Amino acid sequence: MLRREEIHGALSAPALESMNFLNEIMSRYPAAISFAPGAPNPSLMTGLDLNHYIERYVEHLETARGLERDAARRLLCEYGPSRGIINDLVSQALHRDYGLDVAATSVVITVGTQEAMFLVLHALFASPADVLAVATPCYVGILGSAKLLNISIVPIPESADGLDLRRLAEAVREVRASGRRIRALYVAPDFANPSGTTMSLEARRELLQLAEREDLIVLEDGAYGFTAEPGFEIVPLKALDVSNRVILLGTFSKVCMPGVRVGFVVADQAVRGADGTEVLLANMLAAAKSMVSVNTSPICQGIVGGMLLEHGVSIAALGETSGKLYRQNLLHLLESLDRELSGVKDVTWNRPKGGFFIRVTLPVPADFELLERSASAFGVLWTPMSLFHLDGSGDNEMRLSCSYLTLGQIEAGVERLGQLVRSVQT
Amino acid sequence: MLRREEIHGALSAPALESMNFLNEIMSRYPAAISFAPGAPNPSLMTGLDLNHYIERYVEHLETARGLERDAARRLLCEYGPSRGIINDLVSQALHRDYGLDVAATSVVITVGTQEAMFLVLHALFASPADVLAVATPCYVGILGSAKLLNISIVPIPESADGLDLRRLAEAVREVRASGRRIRALYVAPDFANPSGTTMSLEARRELLQLAEREDLIVLEDGAYGFTAEPGFEIVPLKALDVSNRVILLGTFSKVCMPGVRVGFVVADQAVRGADGTEVLLANMLAAAKSMVSVNTSPICQGIVGGMLLEHGVSIAALGETSGKLYRQNLLHLLESLDRELSGVKDVTWNRPKGGFFIRVTLPVPADFELLERSASAFGVLWTPMSLFHLDGSGDNEMRLSCSYLTLGQIEAGVERLGQLVRSVQT
Repeated sequence: MLRREEIHGALSAPALESMNFLNEIMSRYPAAISFAPGAPNPSLMTGLDLNHYIERYVEHLETARGLERDAARRLLCEYGPSRGIINDLVSQALHRDYGLDVAATSVVITVGTQEAMFLVLHALFASPADVLAVATPCYVGILGSAKLLNISIVPIPESADGLDLRRLAEAVREVRASGRRIRALYVAPDFANPSGTTMSLEARRELLQLAEREDLIVLEDGAYGFTAEPGFEIVPLKALDVSNRVILLGTFSKVCMPGVRVGFVVADQAVRGADGTEVLLANMLAAAKSMVSVNTSPICQGIVGGMLLEHGVSIAALGETSGKLYRQNLLHLLESLDRELSGVKDVTWNRPKGGFFIRVTLPVPADFELLERSASAFGVLWTPMSLFHLDGSGDNEMRLSCSYLTLGQIEAGVERLGQLVRSVQT
Repeated sequence: MLRREEIHGALSAPALESMNFLNEIMSRYPAAISFAPGAPNPSLMTGLDLNHYIERYVEHLETARGLERDAARRLLCEYGPSRGIINDLVSQALHRDYGLDVAATSVVITVGTQEAMFLVLHALFASPADVLAVATPCYVGILGSAKLLNISIVPIPESADGLDLRRLAEAVREVRASGRRIRALYVAPDFANPSGTTMSLEARRELLQLAEREDLIVLEDGAYGFTAEPGFEIVPLKALDVSNRVILLGTFSKVCMPGVRVGFVVADQAVRGADGTEVLLANMLAAAKSMVSVNTSPICQGIVGGMLLEHGVSIAALGETSGKLYRQNLLHLLESLDRELSGVKDVTWNRPKGGFFIRVTLPVPADFELLERSASAFGVLWTPMSLFHLDGSGDNEMRLSCSYLTLGQIEAGVERLGQLVRSVQT
């Protein structure tokens, strides 16, 4: 028998209980149409021939590294370097897709973006005086890592144009006045989860200027860039990063599949010791990774590597088919909302140009009570946005995800949402 | 530019530099015969047909869980529960192999044993007053996790019969007298890495009695049990654990392959809150895992699951072929040492009954200087045992691993060791 007060506090925190409660409601209504999961579309997750991609990557190892076929295959079965084995392909893809000039040695391949976030926060937040700024509403993954590491969070509200930079500047001053400092900011500039907002090019430049002025590190999460319409140019913060303060986090869960658990971090910052010697931050993250998970499965890296090679070593090309599907879904969700809810009093929603998520504001609290009624009386599920808010706001908001559904389900689901909304109007 | 004093101290620790130095020497002598790597034998890592094992596991999902084939395949591609998906098979295997009675819900599937160690230490060591006891010489993986988490270590010397229990009891009292406590003990009772020692059944019982008396949690690492000779019965501490203080850590890296990065932890302890409610420790570890890596690749779990199913859901049966190879290698290493080094003054070694490792003691320091000479003049590599010692001892010891070599390489390698040893005799 163990005592809970002797177990790390993060593991019995209220946020976990909210998530459990959400999952519990979902599990009781398996037949409901669910706008809750931000998971990839099931239609993209069939007929995957793993041996095929593995062999494609093995061929690459033969050509690019001069390995014998058997040695190349063994490389995927054995232990491997903590930094990863497909770092060269990721480096090439980032150059091809965004013109980024990052060496393969600056890339660490991780167990999804989640491990990348964990490693980066662990490395950077050495002092309890270091505080992490995040946009609110915020992706829960970064909050989880911060909680495990006892890192204090300061929430920065989002405007329609993404992060509210004036509030960020204020927060920097306030935190400094309290004897602590904002060490880093986590931001997803493209079609953020959960709000769907995107930062304009101007806002990105301003953010980087502010980061330079206030000595902030920027953790950029680029998960949803691949869903942008053709012509809607995605310029990563990392591409505008003249003073090298941006650490880029990436994932293959969306463009390839979540089941591979492969993500990456680009950390090309030099870390200087008191003795003047320098180490690349990526090397330190790889060392930390060796103590958390040793290395990312080389088999899974081989699958991702094979897929990249089949798509001209471009993450954008690899995500083209799925990106098109998600854009179609998102457009259909917006059209359905327009048809079903336009003119309904005090019901509004944003109009993201990509990503999986739309934020809908209701005239009543979008809480667990409403969710329960939504599920039981109308057969439709969604996520209360308050789960992602850190400043007590967002009570009347729901997050709708378009990613997991068919067009028909989206349409029928929004009809049901319409019934729910009208039922609370009276 | 970042400053090293603002980065977590674990990432520039001396232990890492020793390991880097070791790797650097190795990399300069690629043609040397190396007794250093504890990695699985290359001959076992070829011709693996991943689709085959995946399909075997998919069939199981159809039969055991009533899933449609497409839904079963999708399960491997998508996100999944943080606790894992092959927990039922691991539970069955532990029952079949060792008579353990642990529910599937007490098992968490992890990214190798490394993540299991990390999660367990993170959960259990909530207070800086909590100290971890480890056998010295010690497996570096547990030391890495402890370092990342700023956990203090107290080293307990090994006797020929494994852990020195008298010293453990003393350490418990000493640490308590200093106002702290030994919260848990990490121990690998079967053919430990790096020393090769094994605890007798009697020593296991005594250890558990001591743990009960002193309220210690025992972290049991069972990585090498599968290499035991037929007839050499392995009784896990967990099987003798009447007061439920043992947390069992396991890996598929050795019986399956490292490239899958699949391990597990059995944590069937109840955690009681101040309000009297109880949660299973495994649930808390799964919650922590959701913030570190979300889940272990379901593709890799499917490969391991398929392999287990093809071997009667038995880890012992799955490891039979490789276990036989390693026993043959170990025996050949012992015979070669007997032939080459018997009677050489002040050179001794232990005689493990299984595992990958032998400890050789020399009359001179087995340090980096000797290793460099060993590599350059004699073409043979090994690991200085001092890297694994925490109490400043082990200077004259080397660790020899038999796992990665052929019988011919073992023989030739020991001849070269003989030349080295004779060269320092004069």
